[in-house]
Amino acid sequence: MDRRSFLRTSALGGTAAAASTLAAPAVAQGRMTWRMVTTWPKNFPGLGVGAQRLADRITAASDGALTVQVFAAGEMVPPLQALDAVIDQSAEMSHGAAYYWQNKSVGLSFFTGVPFGMTSRELTAWVRHMGGQEIWDEIYDQFGLQGFLSGDTGTQAGGWFRNELTGLQDVQGLRFRTPGLGGQVWQKIGASVTNLAAGEIFAALQSGALDAAEFVGPYNDLALGFHQVCKHYYTSSFIEPGLATECVVDKAKFQALPANLQAIVRDACAAEYDNVAADFAANDPRALQTLVNDHGVTLHSEFPEDILEAAAKGAQELVTELLDSSDALTKKTAESFVEALRIVRQKTEGTDRGFVEARQKYISY
Amino acid sequence: MDRRSFLRTSALGGTAAAASTLAAPAVAQGRMTWRMVTTWPKNFPGLGVGAQRLADRITAASDGALTVQVFAAGEMVPPLQALDAVIDQSAEMSHGAAYYWQNKSVGLSFFTGVPFGMTSRELTAWVRHMGGQEIWDEIYDQFGLQGFLSGDTGTQAGGWFRNELTGLQDVQGLRFRTPGLGGQVWQKIGASVTNLAAGEIFAALQSGALDAAEFVGPYNDLALGFHQVCKHYYTSSFIEPGLATECVVDKAKFQALPANLQAIVRDACAAEYDNVAADFAANDPRALQTLVNDHGVTLHSEFPEDILEAAAKGAQELVTELLDSSDALTKKTAESFVEALRIVRQKTEGTDRGFVEARQKYISY
Repeated sequence: MDRRSFLRTSALGGTAAAASTLAAPAVAQGRMTWRMVTTWPKNFPGLGVGAQRLADRITAASDGALTVQVFAAGEMVPPLQALDAVIDQSAEMSHGAAYYWQNKSVGLSFFTGVPFGMTSRELTAWVRHMGGQEIWDEIYDQFGLQGFLSGDTGTQAGGWFRNELTGLQDVQGLRFRTPGLGGQVWQKIGASVTNLAAGEIFAALQSGALDAAEFVGPYNDLALGFHQVCKHYYTSSFIEPGLATECVVDKAKFQALPANLQAIVRDACAAEYDNVAADFAANDPRALQTLVNDHGVTLHSEFPEDILEAAAKGAQELVTELLDSSDALTKKTAESFVEALRIVRQKTEGTDRGFVEARQKYISY
Repeated sequence: MDRRSFLRTSALGGTAAAASTLAAPAVAQGRMTWRMVTTWPKNFPGLGVGAQRLADRITAASDGALTVQVFAAGEMVPPLQALDAVIDQSAEMSHGAAYYWQNKSVGLSFFTGVPFGMTSRELTAWVRHMGGQEIWDEIYDQFGLQGFLSGDTGTQAGGWFRNELTGLQDVQGLRFRTPGLGGQVWQKIGASVTNLAAGEIFAALQSGALDAAEFVGPYNDLALGFHQVCKHYYTSSFIEPGLATECVVDKAKFQALPANLQAIVRDACAAEYDNVAADFAANDPRALQTLVNDHGVTLHSEFPEDILEAAAKGAQELVTELLDSSDALTKKTAESFVEALRIVRQKTEGTDRGFVEARQKYISY
């Protein structure tokens, strides 16, 4: 019996004991360590730090009965193999973003965020109160996995541009680093889109191989030095109105845990969701102040109207393609997402927005 | 030795044991039930339900080692005596809103929400990442308590009005039910403000004793039937851009818990913060659809500009008075809040807002 199957058997025994007597002794006997592989560099602001905090919460709340050990990107496997590490059982859990695994199921994009899609709060409304989690479970069931929301960046930045954009004509042929569905939207409206790993972006901007690049937001971007080359920073992304992180567990191992440890994992993930977003809410603006005051960056809170309009059309086409997908589960995900968005946008656009506008106009401190 | 001091001594013994050996046996020996008194009616949408879910999370994650029993408003003590019940040790924890206890310390208002103050996300940025929790701890330390954020309504509704408001002149003498600091703002701009318990509002509107009333938002308001009398519903409140709920614990009893149970309580509160807000984000719009489609309510997403401008001035005056407070802790709270708001508003107003506006304009599903 190898170590993994020994642990699984032992944990199953613990569950049976918990059902009939007190769980506490079973937990004490079944102390175990789970490996969490992440897609984030060590101490990556907001996200890598959030993964570590999540692990620490689980360890602390379980008094070490379930100790979680974090592996930064590359420490055990390369970042984009984190999910496969859970599938092949070299780790028990991963921390990353569901849209990294679009090649396994396109519908997973919706659980991270899609262009012109949901804000971070709208996403939890859908996932937790409008059927989203159940569909996500169906997708991951195919791989023996279960996903939980575990963080969110909030609205990301639009990106760094060497020259100010005056309108849609300036996008034509623009060599822009931006990945995923967002990249597809920029491509639709005329940009020449490439993807590059984070560590390669700065050099490509400096050499002139790129005209523009989009990464995360001020909190993460500051450290990468893009402001040394590009002075125009668009603060409001339409392709990433939020980026939700996920914590994915090996479903069989998770279900074999005593019910209280399952609850601890769920609660810790839910606790970090808002906490990570609050970290960005506190620290994106601080980083932005540094970029403006110390590095002479010019901020633009929105892209020109014709870019927004064309991009929204492109984004809606992309989602419409998924609504018409021949894959039943992708179609179902897209339908549930759009149906929920139709409802939740009222509060964001008709309630929150009115307040924010009034405060911006009339409150001076 | 009465039961309470027995429990406290027993729990302290458990902590000492946990420090030297395994905590699990101590937890098994120290199974206990905590009473949570709440300020909410039983099954009150969003808030009362959130209190129950919080209790259930703690019970489940601790495998019953800390079982939490919920008392709705009036079941053990009247709603506005919930905090006193924890202070006098007839309960171990309460669930309510910090601004109900302004009479103990005015600064507590900031941890629920103040007129033209922070949104729900901005609040956790301040409390968790910008020093807010530490100040809150200082305030509650005076009473032997500790508070944790445990939910948020998001932006509430502006209220129900018999007649449409065309401008500031329509506010003069308007008999309006709205409590707290928000009531003070409406009073400053000319309304004749009264406070009434939830159960008395409908009759006062129907009899003509009131011209208008503000309660929570669509999810809670629908059940109270205000729409039968008032057809004008202003969806965006400037006095309650969020209402954060708190879970308050007896600090000595909390600190006597084993560290893992303390972590479980903290994580469960943090988990519910976003979850309650997500519940409102999902269900406020659904209730609003019912109000419009089935009850012919007319929605106004914002109050007239001159009302907003005058109210913002009034709200800023109120906060400025607290900035100048002779009570050092109130002054410190107000200063920390305003300093944090100056920073975090950039993301909400300069980043989130741009995205929401663009989506509202250009996305048609």
